[in-house]
Amino acid sequence: MINVGVLGATGAVGQRFVQLLANHPWFRLTTLTASDRSAGKRYQDVVNWRLDVPFPEDVGSLVVEPTNVSAVSDLDIVFSALPADIATTLETDIAAAGVGVCSNASSHRMDCNVPLVVPEVNPDHLGLIDVQRDKGTDGFIVANPNCSTIVLCLSLAPLMPFGFSNLTVATMQAISGAGFQGIPAMEIYDNVVPYIGSEEEKMENEPLKIMGSFDGAEVRNAPFQVSASCHRVPVIDGHTMAVWADTKAPVADVIEAYRTYTPPISGLPHLPSESVHYTDEPNRPQPRLDRNRGGGMTVSVGRMREGLRYVAMGHNTIRGAAGASVLNAELIVSKKYV
Amino acid sequence: MINVGVLGATGAVGQRFVQLLANHPWFRLTTLTASDRSAGKRYQDVVNWRLDVPFPEDVGSLVVEPTNVSAVSDLDIVFSALPADIATTLETDIAAAGVGVCSNASSHRMDCNVPLVVPEVNPDHLGLIDVQRDKGTDGFIVANPNCSTIVLCLSLAPLMPFGFSNLTVATMQAISGAGFQGIPAMEIYDNVVPYIGSEEEKMENEPLKIMGSFDGAEVRNAPFQVSASCHRVPVIDGHTMAVWADTKAPVADVIEAYRTYTPPISGLPHLPSESVHYTDEPNRPQPRLDRNRGGGMTVSVGRMREGLRYVAMGHNTIRGAAGASVLNAELIVSKKYV
Amino acid sequence: MINVGVLGATGAVGQRFVQLLANHPWFRLTTLTASDRSAGKRYQDVVNWRLDVPFPEDVGSLVVEPTNVSAVSDLDIVFSALPADIATTLETDIAAAGVGVCSNASSHRMDCNVPLVVPEVNPDHLGLIDVQRDKGTDGFIVANPNCSTIVLCLSLAPLMPFGFSNLTVATMQAISGAGFQGIPAMEIYDNVVPYIGSEEEKMENEPLKIMGSFDGAEVRNAPFQVSASCHRVPVIDGHTMAVWADTKAPVADVIEAYRTYTPPISGLPHLPSESVHYTDEPNRPQPRLDRNRGGGMTVSVGRMREGLRYVAMGHNTIRGAAGASVLNAELIVSKKYV
Amino acid sequence: MINVGVLGATGAVGQRFVQLLANHPWFRLTTLTASDRSAGKRYQDVVNWRLDVPFPEDVGSLVVEPTNVSAVSDLDIVFSALPADIATTLETDIAAAGVGVCSNASSHRMDCNVPLVVPEVNPDHLGLIDVQRDKGTDGFIVANPNCSTIVLCLSLAPLMPFGFSNLTVATMQAISGAGFQGIPAMEIYDNVVPYIGSEEEKMENEPLKIMGSFDGAEVRNAPFQVSASCHRVPVIDGHTMAVWADTKAPVADVIEAYRTYTPPISGLPHLPSESVHYTDEPNRPQPRLDRNRGGGMTVSVGRMREGLRYVAMGHNTIRGAAGASVLNAELIVSKKYV
Repeated sequence: MINVGVLGATGAVGQRFVQLLANHPWFRLTTLTASDRSAGKRYQDVVNWRLDVPFPEDVGSLVVEPTNVSAVSDLDIVFSALPADIATTLETDIAAAGVGVCSNASSHRMDCNVPLVVPEVNPDHLGLIDVQRDKGTDGFIVANPNCSTIVLCLSLAPLMPFGFSNLTVATMQAISGAGFQGIPAMEIYDNVVPYIGSEEEKMENEPLKIMGSFDGAEVRNAPFQVSASCHRVPVIDGHTMAVWADTKAPVADVIEAYRTYTPPISGLPHLPSESVHYTDEPNRPQPRLDRNRGGGMTVSVGRMREGLRYVAMGHNTIRGAAGASVLNAELIVSKKYV
Repeated sequence: MINVGVLGATGAVGQRFVQLLANHPWFRLTTLTASDRSAGKRYQDVVNWRLDVPFPEDVGSLVVEPTNVSAVSDLDIVFSALPADIATTLETDIAAAGVGVCSNASSHRMDCNVPLVVPEVNPDHLGLIDVQRDKGTDGFIVANPNCSTIVLCLSLAPLMPFGFSNLTVATMQAISGAGFQGIPAMEIYDNVVPYIGSEEEKMENEPLKIMGSFDGAEVRNAPFQVSASCHRVPVIDGHTMAVWADTKAPVADVIEAYRTYTPPISGLPHLPSESVHYTDEPNRPQPRLDRNRGGGMTVSVGRMREGLRYVAMGHNTIRGAAGASVLNAELIVSKKYV
Repeated sequence: MINVGVLGATGAVGQRFVQLLANHPWFRLTTLTASDRSAGKRYQDVVNWRLDVPFPEDVGSLVVEPTNVSAVSDLDIVFSALPADIATTLETDIAAAGVGVCSNASSHRMDCNVPLVVPEVNPDHLGLIDVQRDKGTDGFIVANPNCSTIVLCLSLAPLMPFGFSNLTVATMQAISGAGFQGIPAMEIYDNVVPYIGSEEEKMENEPLKIMGSFDGAEVRNAPFQVSASCHRVPVIDGHTMAVWADTKAPVADVIEAYRTYTPPISGLPHLPSESVHYTDEPNRPQPRLDRNRGGGMTVSVGRMREGLRYVAMGHNTIRGAAGASVLNAELIVSKKYV
Repeated sequence: MINVGVLGATGAVGQRFVQLLANHPWFRLTTLTASDRSAGKRYQDVVNWRLDVPFPEDVGSLVVEPTNVSAVSDLDIVFSALPADIATTLETDIAAAGVGVCSNASSHRMDCNVPLVVPEVNPDHLGLIDVQRDKGTDGFIVANPNCSTIVLCLSLAPLMPFGFSNLTVATMQAISGAGFQGIPAMEIYDNVVPYIGSEEEKMENEPLKIMGSFDGAEVRNAPFQVSASCHRVPVIDGHTMAVWADTKAPVADVIEAYRTYTPPISGLPHLPSESVHYTDEPNRPQPRLDRNRGGGMTVSVGRMREGLRYVAMGHNTIRGAAGASVLNAELIVSKKYV
């Protein structure tokens, strides 16, 4: 068993980490960190559990640690659900202390030595761990992309063999993406908010790195462009997006590629039976009905039509955040980096 | 005063017609039609008034007529909130009986002799009334576009001088667009439905006619193309859409054009002080906060940025339906067609 | 294994039955019935699966039967998710054919020979099966109460030893209670509807029978009175209710009774580890966070305070409908009636 | 014209004050206060206008003042939308400076010399202004009740002649009651929260003072008791409540009393044509359809039935807050206290 911990375990993404790690077959969850005022108390006494799955009772008695290097320096892997401003320095320090950091924070995603990984799409980018280690540390940082980027990239995986030059994407994103306190009800109920800070920039930059090529030393960005418009809608979980890809591939061939798609990896506990599920139903995917497919790890795609246009949807706090980091960690372990 | 009536006065759009016509300065609302089982009863006794504005009491005592030609043959103008299957024949028959029909139904929108009008965009297309009359009838049919098309076309009006070749649009449409009974709560609550029957086809065809050129005899379609993806979101009123226009115009010039835009018409009771309102606020327009601007007749536009990308929003059952027909009728009267 | 079927398997409650029975340890789900137009087709081809749990694939290939006696006459137990108007005659005929009917329909709940059972509350009422059989049939009908009644009665179970003379209850009920098509989004979004047809009557009558005494021949109604006010709120699943009970019991004693409550039955697959969960948190129970407790079979109670007042909440389509019938069937089997 | 101002003009209730006062026939709105960081800027530059009615443009250029005594000491009346902790001292100081304070804050509601007024219910309690003035100040404080209390008291006004000894009330309250930022969307969407801090205590105490008798010197509490259970539901505006009143009056007589009810005051600009509207429709009142009745100043009542039970609903930020204070001020002026 590999000893793991969660940095920032009481927030929306932190709770998802705890949910996914509580009974993990490979990982033993031994450490939960939170703010100083929670430190020293039992997790069950400080967390305001707000997921609609039951609280994992056996984790409840863990005593919460303060969020610093020494709290996690004995672990093999630590999962970071920290806000970006805190993550920037702390994740670097933790990696320097010899710990593997699987981070959901945006701080280091675009660092040239940090792999930005979606396991089904660019597992080879983990080779950047060696680049990091060549600089003299045992630890490392591996980042997962922004929630919307992950859904987009997985939805593009079966399309990659056909090639495309430009992407246009309009998102309809869930409120959980902003955390438990992030969006007042008066702001989003009976409403659409057509702006999410920094989201469009992330969707326009991160896919180029993820789908870029790695030559053993560095990642060269993929040559396409993304134009994104990001919107918040009154949905609890599940980011939906309309995608246009500038490709000449025939629709029928593309649909067949989605049906027969298999990812280049296998055997990981959180790898769902289908990473990308294609549906023929004319009015799907829908977040409320499809977000829990594959335990929240499957991205659903439908409405493939001339244009080339389609609709993609995935669970933003599972596949798009905590589950992404956990799957990255599983890939890291299976590749013997830990 | 011009005598007018409403066909299908009890439904969602029908009630909006009644709201807008109850105290109209030019029109006297004398006739309301509904299904046979409502005919013969007072409007207030058969309508299930579900708008969030007060019921116009003085219309309540009107006795509902059956929906047929003779019920409206004495009127100058009749507004049609009929379903398309009923409208197809009945509107033709009513026009043949000498009555002007301002229709929100989709039945005749693409008929070559029927003007499909957004008053600010193509008022000259009303010339097709003469073409209709040349065929021997005093009456006529004038259609307004689909709700999403209207919001799109108005949002494009200030952009037309710059030219564009392709449009990409993703909509986030309100539930009222499907009528009072149209969408079960279990289908749309905490959900997005990425499909609205025939909506994408309408958005891809109607704008080409509206923005086409009229030479006195026929309309030649505009030469651009539209690619639409239409989605229903949990919002009561107000269609929001992300638009990409393939133009080389600089963003600053475009924004200036929106700020200084004035439509080519004036002096109509339901023409708002701004047909298109441009907002600098980074997270607007929003349906709940902006849909009632200009009494629901103003389309709000914001987030103009490189791409060229922007967000547009308008009230779907006022500007996008009943208000559109009423404004068309006001234009018709001001142009002396009635 | 006991062979079972579901009458009306495509609706909201029918789908819940299928979910709960698909992998049941005691029951083999062999028969699904629906309307004539679905009969003869595979279940997966006719059902519009709208639950947020995955479709049970191995049931999908069952060929749907028409809803009549012969379709189910070989079964041991059939679960009825039929509308009341169809259930009235058909359930009687099926029982006459020798099949045990566990019904969620309201048709026979108040029949004097039909036990109206909440297993934790009045398991002894199953003795009415013998009364039914004394009249010459092998089959029988056992009803479960209305969804709100079940939540109320379970919430009262720990209170029964203290006694009470009058109950006042105000409900806040979920939209799923009206079925998938039951409530238009325009009716309930951003709204409360303070009326649910026949609901108050059910809540005022059914508890008196359930909590009545059974002497081996008939049930004598309990001597208290219920005054209910029923309201629909914009919640997908989970009925919440404020309850006032006219008792002199001290609050602290009552809370202790809730904490230590154990039901008089045990060993049934769908009996949750807690039938009634008492929470000290000041703002719980909440439907979104607590409805899935115990797989949807636990009723949550909180805010016990002077008055005597408290708040109760339970999952209306699991504990309040399909799960109630399944638990009844498990009790019936454990009592050797089948 | 009477010069008035608003304390705390940028919040949810403050904006409602501005909406109602912008074009008031008796009052000239000259002063708006807010926090120090907004002071010195134009109102339109600091307010994030979030009402669904248009921003009153002519008020926008008012320069915001800091929230202190000197900012308002020249006014005749000031309206307070301050939080209770700030209001406690500041309102007292402003009254001492000779200004009439009409307060929506809870700070002084239960002070024995401060009238707690619903104009239709206890206009005579304004006599406590004289008691305040006998203590040597020209200014005064007049409070309006909590939002739920106001709806309850107005709904009881037609019932008062029949008498009642106990009230039981369960509320379903709107999210706007907690202010623009008060409730995270993740907390209330698809949910009910069965607790609102201090709300039950207010509903249980304030009505006794409001409906108490004033002998020219002090108010003696009314002799009935209230037992309240307060719940938040996903509704934007409009508090709905189920009420049980312990009275022996026949339902038909009570309904007749509601139909014929007229308040003891008249001629005030914000007094609606009906203070209490009784509806026969079986499923009304509903917040979305009825909250704007009488410009948001009418309380709607329906479903009167044996028990005695009924449902009441009113707009919580208009009739229940800002409109209540404005109507109080109008009553004060009409009674020549200013």
